[in-house]
Amino acid sequence: MPSHTLQFRVRYSETDQMQTFYNSRALEWFEVGRTELSRAMGLPYTEWEQRGVLIPLIEARVFFRGRASYDDLLEMTVTMKPEGRAALRFENRIVQAKSGAPVADGYTVHALLSAETGKPLRMPPWIKELLQNHG
Amino acid sequence: MPSHTLQFRVRYSETDQMQTFYNSRALEWFEVGRTELSRAMGLPYTEWEQRGVLIPLIEARVFFRGRASYDDLLEMTVTMKPEGRAALRFENRIVQAKSGAPVADGYTVHALLSAETGKPLRMPPWIKELLQNHG
Amino acid sequence: MPSHTLQFRVRYSETDQMQTFYNSRALEWFEVGRTELSRAMGLPYTEWEQRGVLIPLIEARVFFRGRASYDDLLEMTVTMKPEGRAALRFENRIVQAKSGAPVADGYTVHALLSAETGKPLRMPPWIKELLQNHG
Amino acid sequence: MPSHTLQFRVRYSETDQMQTFYNSRALEWFEVGRTELSRAMGLPYTEWEQRGVLIPLIEARVFFRGRASYDDLLEMTVTMKPEGRAALRFENRIVQAKSGAPVADGYTVHALLSAETGKPLRMPPWIKELLQNHG
Repeated sequence: MPSHTLQFRVRYSETDQMQTFYNSRALEWFEVGRTELSRAMGLPYTEWEQRGVLIPLIEARVFFRGRASYDDLLEMTVTMKPEGRAALRFENRIVQAKSGAPVADGYTVHALLSAETGKPLRMPPWIKELLQNHG
Repeated sequence: MPSHTLQFRVRYSETDQMQTFYNSRALEWFEVGRTELSRAMGLPYTEWEQRGVLIPLIEARVFFRGRASYDDLLEMTVTMKPEGRAALRFENRIVQAKSGAPVADGYTVHALLSAETGKPLRMPPWIKELLQNHG
Repeated sequence: MPSHTLQFRVRYSETDQMQTFYNSRALEWFEVGRTELSRAMGLPYTEWEQRGVLIPLIEARVFFRGRASYDDLLEMTVTMKPEGRAALRFENRIVQAKSGAPVADGYTVHALLSAETGKPLRMPPWIKELLQNHG
Repeated sequence: MPSHTLQFRVRYSETDQMQTFYNSRALEWFEVGRTELSRAMGLPYTEWEQRGVLIPLIEARVFFRGRASYDDLLEMTVTMKPEGRAALRFENRIVQAKSGAPVADGYTVHALLSAETGKPLRMPPWIKELLQNHG
């Protein structure tokens, strides 16, 4: 399955008064992971939209494993999988880059919609190829 | 189980270029729900922290059911439940206030930690009472 | 000049590890003020867009006057003014609702653009009327 | 004056339904600029806090110059200057990395506070050195 690992730092704006990252930021980081995985596969997500495919979330799940403070360097691995015939699943795992201590993991499930009609799409061949060619 | 319903509007800052709310906002709205449920039970969450209890998330799950645009009036119902002996679960359901059309639902699971030591707590009696008295 | 006052509470997601609201949230609150002022004038901002007018920001300025913690009840007053012949200015003042202690104030300046062409617009008569009728 | 240039991409979470970045994100990006300038000077901002100095914003100003869409590569230059004897000023300029087209510029002004007492500080010698040594 296509997979990609990237590093990023916790922004001050992403912390909260409990001195760790605010919970919803995990979903924003997951999105950064999807974006960078798409680019790494040679097909930036902006091109998905140009090819007429939107992939809105239908489900998101996060398990919070540990703290992360302002400016901590985090490492995220994201993997793309098929979810049935007409959906995609992205799995994410975030750890502290230095120690490997777990921070958060989880997944998002995405419908495949036509950018024109907004209706569900069968998985296009070029997405099937992405899933196969990036083992 | 203690439950509370409130209404709020989608902020412009919460939309994204797909013309609906950005996915992570659901978790921010869930938090507003927990805050208002706490107040409705007579014990604002700031007092939980003063009584020495933190309830950090250990899991969050969201199912995205429909779109919501800028300024749409949404209605959210939040319910608090015990999750085993040492955790809490808040369930949320968000619909369009006018039509009742579903927007998002899901839940968050929270550990009970000592604000002093950061270590897990047994469920304090006053939380058990909240769970019983607000059927 | 049209003016409106509203109250709102600081969300947990809006705090940061300095135990006060994160600075950019002031601009998100200013936007809530513009939205509610528009509604109070009888012309919700969604109708501005339907009438073909976008009002993107060209400038924003915030003075940070004091702290505000999670769940603090804040009071914001927003006033709409013309800025020359083809722009609008919204002035905002946020204080602690209980004590009146200042939290933040500032303003945003907005161009008037055609929603169709994206080009600058002269101020439409109905906006001039809003400015005059809501002293 | 110390100055630093960095590149970053617009996240999906930072867009809004006007198909450009939401205005408050500029302040979040400015903060990323301050963070990276501090690191480039050899003194990450976390060390400022460890040395007992907080630099809360007292003013922020942004001029919005152009659009930026999801995944656009932006380039930001940030410069640190003294503001009188007891404050700092960070100036930011954001452009499209490819075309150089302006996106936003502005500045933030920061008080110098003691992390212990929360009271104003005279500018410590090591901050004066940072201002002088990084011309």
